[in-house]
Amino acid sequence: MTADNSSALPIGVFDSGVGGLTVLKAIRAALPHENFVYLGDTARLPYGTKSPVSITRYAMQATAKLVNHDIKLLVVACNTASAVALTALQKQMAPIPVLGVVEPGATAAVAARPGGSHLVMATEATVRLGAYRHAISRIDPQAAVREQSCELLVALAEEGWTTGSIADSIVRRYFDEAEDDDFKADSIILGCTHFPLLRDVITTVVGDDVAVVDSAITTAAVVRDILAGNGALATGSRCGELKLLATDGAKRFARVGGQFLGEPLTADDVQLVDL
Amino acid sequence: MTADNSSALPIGVFDSGVGGLTVLKAIRAALPHENFVYLGDTARLPYGTKSPVSITRYAMQATAKLVNHDIKLLVVACNTASAVALTALQKQMAPIPVLGVVEPGATAAVAARPGGSHLVMATEATVRLGAYRHAISRIDPQAAVREQSCELLVALAEEGWTTGSIADSIVRRYFDEAEDDDFKADSIILGCTHFPLLRDVITTVVGDDVAVVDSAITTAAVVRDILAGNGALATGSRCGELKLLATDGAKRFARVGGQFLGEPLTADDVQLVDL
Repeated sequence: MTADNSSALPIGVFDSGVGGLTVLKAIRAALPHENFVYLGDTARLPYGTKSPVSITRYAMQATAKLVNHDIKLLVVACNTASAVALTALQKQMAPIPVLGVVEPGATAAVAARPGGSHLVMATEATVRLGAYRHAISRIDPQAAVREQSCELLVALAEEGWTTGSIADSIVRRYFDEAEDDDFKADSIILGCTHFPLLRDVITTVVGDDVAVVDSAITTAAVVRDILAGNGALATGSRCGELKLLATDGAKRFARVGGQFLGEPLTADDVQLVDL
Repeated sequence: MTADNSSALPIGVFDSGVGGLTVLKAIRAALPHENFVYLGDTARLPYGTKSPVSITRYAMQATAKLVNHDIKLLVVACNTASAVALTALQKQMAPIPVLGVVEPGATAAVAARPGGSHLVMATEATVRLGAYRHAISRIDPQAAVREQSCELLVALAEEGWTTGSIADSIVRRYFDEAEDDDFKADSIILGCTHFPLLRDVITTVVGDDVAVVDSAITTAAVVRDILAGNGALATGSRCGELKLLATDGAKRFARVGGQFLGEPLTADDVQLVDL
């Protein structure tokens, strides 16, 4: 494959559901000329409460589907799948580059608050695996890291209750559980794709002194670097195309996903695929 | 199969996850001498946001597994699977009797408030299918029915935040969305297996004049009637045995499920099965 050919090929983005559309949104904003194929494994979401064995099997089945679309790079937008299955996916997809959202998020947090204390808000599975803790320690061994499982925030984002007193109380309760005399956060890592929708309420609760790190934005920067390094960045002035695939429930994907992508979707925009 | 043999056989209880343990708990309380096999399809939960085609396929695969345990009756404890797949499951399991939780819940609500107005709190899929609306209309054509999707209550129950101001605010918001000048509820149907855990806060919000109907309790009464009619009720003074099966995550099943069953569980109590 030559660089000329590969630059026109789409970037694959994989998630367990609609949450990864926040990552897609960030990458499209950074790289508007690229074509994208997004696959949400909505038939088997959420990954966050499932076992590593199941998560790896599901992720490998789903991403194998993306190979048929001739993708030039795969972004694992799901934090849980990034934490559990990244190595397995890199092996399966080689020589196509595969990157997750955990490393870019960890890198950005350390850059924002070197030597600081980092609070990771994530799903149960991501917390259980200590994915961000390990990633941050590799970059900044002095850093203090605490990880807080925040499952209710997922439901809150999907329900669209992203502002107001209920969102505020829930975010505040999770912070109260995470922080104590020994630990005050200098940065908050939004370690689940759903949480960028709650960014405003989280910022209000933690105050302006705390850096709120969105893995989606830093992942977009890494995607650009990899493609530029491979001579595979899309060129030209045309806006790229977007193909949306889901394993179940096109209507719900469109309704909830529109909020995550930041533009209205209809069921006709979503193609159902069988795994 | 004679009545003497079948009385010792276990009752099968099927759910998408741990929620059905509230139904199992109610049936065990009513029929303590029975043996039970419970199967939670935790690898593919939740069913509530998935499409009817996927829900039916999943439910049929999972319950086929329970046939190996020689069950004498199957309770579909999942409201969503009851609403979507009951007829398909009855056909698959015949001649084993199969009952869901929707009909018993609807019957109990009408009995509690004949000719009244019923508010069904349920998952998206149960609401979308109008399962309780249809069941209530068949029994009491004069009844007014409103159905409210309450996805956040599922997460709230799983997180164990079943009391306090956050639970109160969320329940209150769902009621405010459901009720208006044209509709005031005389009964509330807990149309999701998770919601009995929130019974206290729901009762506080709606007040004592409103009947709160728990499908689990009325389902237990129907199970007893069917078994008595078939001469298949367990006899003797020994307490029955309970076998717990799950398709994923024994540890999480034990931790969250213990709250639903109302007794502590460990991962060793849960046997993983592959579908």
